[in-house]
Amino acid sequence: MSETLSHKLIAAHLLDGEMTPGSEIALRMDQTLLQDILGTLVMLELDAMGIDRVRTDPSVQYIDHTLLQPDNINADAHLFLKSACERLGVWYSGPGNGISHPVHMERFGVPGQSLVGCDSHTTAAGALSMLAIGAGGIEVAMAMAGEPLYLPMPEVIGVRLEGDLPEWVSAKDVILELLRRHGVAGAKNCILEYHGPGLAALDAMDRHVLANMGTEMGATASVFPSDEVTREFLRSRGREADWRPLAADPGCRYDRSERIDLSTLEPLIALPSSPDKVVPVSRVAGEPLYQAYIGSSGNPGYRDFAVVAEIVKGRRVASEVSLDINPSTRQVLSALIGEGHLAALVEAGARLHQPGCNGCIGMGQAPAAGRNSLRTVPRNFPGRSGTREDSVFLCSPETAAASALAGVITDPRSLGMPCPRVREPARMAVSDDWFVPPLPAERARHVSLLATDNTPPLPALTPLPERIEVPVLLKAGDNVSTDDIMPAGARVLPIWSNVYASAEHTFEALDPDYVARARARGDAGHAIVGGNNYGQGSSRENAALVPRLLGLQVVIARSIARIHWQNLPCFGVLPLTFRDPADYGRIARGQTLVIDDVRGQLAAGQRIQATLDGAPLTLMHELSPRQVAILTAGGVINWLRQRKASSPEENVT
Amino acid sequence: MSETLSHKLIAAHLLDGEMTPGSEIALRMDQTLLQDILGTLVMLELDAMGIDRVRTDPSVQYIDHTLLQPDNINADAHLFLKSACERLGVWYSGPGNGISHPVHMERFGVPGQSLVGCDSHTTAAGALSMLAIGAGGIEVAMAMAGEPLYLPMPEVIGVRLEGDLPEWVSAKDVILELLRRHGVAGAKNCILEYHGPGLAALDAMDRHVLANMGTEMGATASVFPSDEVTREFLRSRGREADWRPLAADPGCRYDRSERIDLSTLEPLIALPSSPDKVVPVSRVAGEPLYQAYIGSSGNPGYRDFAVVAEIVKGRRVASEVSLDINPSTRQVLSALIGEGHLAALVEAGARLHQPGCNGCIGMGQAPAAGRNSLRTVPRNFPGRSGTREDSVFLCSPETAAASALAGVITDPRSLGMPCPRVREPARMAVSDDWFVPPLPAERARHVSLLATDNTPPLPALTPLPERIEVPVLLKAGDNVSTDDIMPAGARVLPIWSNVYASAEHTFEALDPDYVARARARGDAGHAIVGGNNYGQGSSRENAALVPRLLGLQVVIARSIARIHWQNLPCFGVLPLTFRDPADYGRIARGQTLVIDDVRGQLAAGQRIQATLDGAPLTLMHELSPRQVAILTAGGVINWLRQRKASSPEENVT
Repeated sequence: MSETLSHKLIAAHLLDGEMTPGSEIALRMDQTLLQDILGTLVMLELDAMGIDRVRTDPSVQYIDHTLLQPDNINADAHLFLKSACERLGVWYSGPGNGISHPVHMERFGVPGQSLVGCDSHTTAAGALSMLAIGAGGIEVAMAMAGEPLYLPMPEVIGVRLEGDLPEWVSAKDVILELLRRHGVAGAKNCILEYHGPGLAALDAMDRHVLANMGTEMGATASVFPSDEVTREFLRSRGREADWRPLAADPGCRYDRSERIDLSTLEPLIALPSSPDKVVPVSRVAGEPLYQAYIGSSGNPGYRDFAVVAEIVKGRRVASEVSLDINPSTRQVLSALIGEGHLAALVEAGARLHQPGCNGCIGMGQAPAAGRNSLRTVPRNFPGRSGTREDSVFLCSPETAAASALAGVITDPRSLGMPCPRVREPARMAVSDDWFVPPLPAERARHVSLLATDNTPPLPALTPLPERIEVPVLLKAGDNVSTDDIMPAGARVLPIWSNVYASAEHTFEALDPDYVARARARGDAGHAIVGGNNYGQGSSRENAALVPRLLGLQVVIARSIARIHWQNLPCFGVLPLTFRDPADYGRIARGQTLVIDDVRGQLAAGQRIQATLDGAPLTLMHELSPRQVAILTAGGVINWLRQRKASSPEENVT
Repeated sequence: MSETLSHKLIAAHLLDGEMTPGSEIALRMDQTLLQDILGTLVMLELDAMGIDRVRTDPSVQYIDHTLLQPDNINADAHLFLKSACERLGVWYSGPGNGISHPVHMERFGVPGQSLVGCDSHTTAAGALSMLAIGAGGIEVAMAMAGEPLYLPMPEVIGVRLEGDLPEWVSAKDVILELLRRHGVAGAKNCILEYHGPGLAALDAMDRHVLANMGTEMGATASVFPSDEVTREFLRSRGREADWRPLAADPGCRYDRSERIDLSTLEPLIALPSSPDKVVPVSRVAGEPLYQAYIGSSGNPGYRDFAVVAEIVKGRRVASEVSLDINPSTRQVLSALIGEGHLAALVEAGARLHQPGCNGCIGMGQAPAAGRNSLRTVPRNFPGRSGTREDSVFLCSPETAAASALAGVITDPRSLGMPCPRVREPARMAVSDDWFVPPLPAERARHVSLLATDNTPPLPALTPLPERIEVPVLLKAGDNVSTDDIMPAGARVLPIWSNVYASAEHTFEALDPDYVARARARGDAGHAIVGGNNYGQGSSRENAALVPRLLGLQVVIARSIARIHWQNLPCFGVLPLTFRDPADYGRIARGQTLVIDDVRGQLAAGQRIQATLDGAPLTLMHELSPRQVAILTAGGVINWLRQRKASSPEENVT
């Protein structure tokens, strides 16, 4: 039977489950990737699990988000992460090397392998025909420990590309077109699988642009075939031996199908403040401009910078525009120097920044309030730039460069110059000297974690009790996000690695007294009640761990967002829903919830019989036996430690 | 009679006063320079003065400190400053152009001219034979308005340089040797005038290193002759027409004399945490290293970066070291690219940052807590790096580069490689396109200030009353610094431009309730009593303006630091000392101070008769008639507005 490439990749890594859309599957992970903001907690989790050597190869820790260093917290975290890498057998890509996604593709990407990373744009490696998925930190920690990655089997959307890109139109316009058609939830629980003759128009880093921003459509992954373009990419990095051909079978059937004739595309732009508010650039041409921002994993390729250099070369950026150049990687920076493009940019008046994520996630280069910023980044959610009242547009490097020259938003086709033709140098430098490789196991054993006050060990969690008797301490409405539970931002983000310190900020906007009430109860515990879609938003695991630390034992909601629902049992919190959603209205803060024989009820079926101030209340759970075992143990860390203790030689995969 | 070069430069700009050391002189200022942190207040002051066109030519506003942009405050300030430049006839050097001191020297420096800037390292332009002085913002505002700069006539220290520099020894080691000999107050109220045959060993940017860090010895200015080296510097920038020869007369007499035989020097290093804790590098060789930081106005020349590139070329920086490269200017960055040095740095593993002040003033790149950081910057005061518990050493680029390679503090002579010989390219690009020139007056009139909530207009101050009757609201001990009065740091610095918002932080560490007490009194006013050396430290004028805004009318202290003493009457505050210092002990918080006929007493002489809770108290003032007039008017802004109103056509200089 003809198979899609996605099915082949999944089948090659399938450890358990049925490949039926929606059904839980367990996948073997070959590689893992950590970024720095979330990597600290992952390292602390691995330490708490008692792991002394990771199982995925390679596992790589990237320092790419925390580069500003306004005080010692970032630098201290880098030293902690480097020591954890040395101890656990993880590659360390230090500050200055660049953004995880392109660096990983350059140095470690291998067609056909699987990768999970604690960053939503980990999907970018699908450009190299990898099965690459973003997940919460605890799931990556489990993968590093040798456990499978669990997820619902996705649907596969086949995206057939035809024709060739017109002048002044590039990869970013292709993904913007898909966002225009399908919106930010258009590929939820799906894999976007690209195929067709138009692929030849996209080199490997162009494909990265599409695979990266599949995340903006909610895709679980994006997958490209491994073809001669892929081979050329690896060859120019001195890694042709890692190449192998991969493609869907002719005639395979996709769950859904889409078609784009590249030759019909024009320059597109996403208006503030959502990646799917896409219109032709010509629709907003002439609007004033404060900033043109080139960089991020949304347009990380050499050509994405070189084309900007070719456009501004010998000219002067408009004096009212800040043209910010954020090379994605050390390699790209090096190539831009070598080919004369960096000189052209600097002489035209651009500002040059260090390689890394930078302003894409609000780490510097925040625009002036209310002023238009054109960015080649993947996201323009409100405030993400660091400026609360921002006005961020997403577009191609061509559009950003043309606009920087003109001083107003400009369709690059109206520049009146020949469209630059940029090719990658035949040889792209990539040096292992830029990385710190894993230490041999015998040396690694002697490395101590360089912990600081900001990286205290994780708390030991207690197993699930036989009987739960707790008050409802907080009753929330619909759509509580993980941002509501555990805030991010410049104030709290640097202390995420410290669950005790960040606990002070739990629910601070929604209910400033929650922390005090929870602390008053202490280990006696409490319950939280939510409405629909409780825990929506990011995958941050501390939104489960930190409330647990404050005594949270049970969450009851009308519905719970998928990733948060997965995170809760990983940290020993029981997630339940109402059998009758109308029961939400019966609950008030301060009432006492009692669940007798919790373990027995969980094992017996989906129904959980409880009482609320003595009156019966029927609740439901959807946990798998694996999740029940994790919950019963008091979370993933205890569960893994127990398995390790009972079977020390077990090779989990 | 033979004259020193310093005397010639002063005589050429003298408007009033005697050239006797310590006597107040009034100097005509040709040029002015603003940096961004303090420039906002200066622009608001000029606006409040009713100035519509500045008189100095050029006046230049540099954006070099506020480059991180973690939120919109920096970017908003840039737009405000640019609009102020357009309105007032000021050149604008935007973010990305680099540090004021080297950029000013490259593009605007003219031998023989005078320059005042609101940055203590403005002295660096003495390298080009300018009379260049750092001062408080209000003094620069006055100079921009056409007023003279007043200062005590300095003593002149002749520093004779002989011999040639040994291999691996460079300009930084020369100024470190002077700091070793004389300490951080060794040139207070002096001009350091360099002469002798050893000058030939120092090119113009080497001289910048010495003139810049004369400030670390407390020097009012540093002066170099204008010779063939100067001519070559200007020629390579396409500005040979600005050159003219300037030198001391043979046989001139200096107030003090110093001699350095360059050939006897060795690599030196200042230990944490003072620039004068200087020892040979060999004394601390082998100490572990976290960071090597190359940049700042302390080593801003092309050669200071190129020599590092030559040292690390083809090698790999030790993996435990962060080698941070902060190009000083766009020009230097461009030249480093052109000559292949940037490629060598990036490939060796260095981190590249945007041109500007950056980590030198704690704006990023803060080191890990307690870890050693070797820096080519001018200062290593505790915490200046952004890390409270920092450990910062000052050294030459050669020493920093050698240490980065070795991973421990290293005397570069022990590297075992030939000493690199680096020469500037014959042509250093400098483009007027990188600046926004002043608008013609007729267009400038139509420009509005882009004010934000963070740049409100300055308050109107009331004239000095005829009678003062106020309570003592705060009694402080000795050595209260301007940091105690108006804190800096990442929390408060961004709101310095907003005197109303920053007022909340006045004296916050010393007396957290002072603001509330002062606000309760309101316009009824209050007095502050200090011990010795009240108002020491930086020249920040908001340490006078903001307490005045809170109602401060009189400061009485045992002694008042010179610059703060000058700032107080500029904002309408009467600075007094005790005739009998023992009277300090008689005063308590809450007592009432009464001064009758204040204006009459100030005009009549130095003695001021007051009462304290009814008992007589004799105080003293040292204000000149000019200062009394300013004080009486309620500060400089009122004084200048009144003069302008009474004589609208007056050309003040």
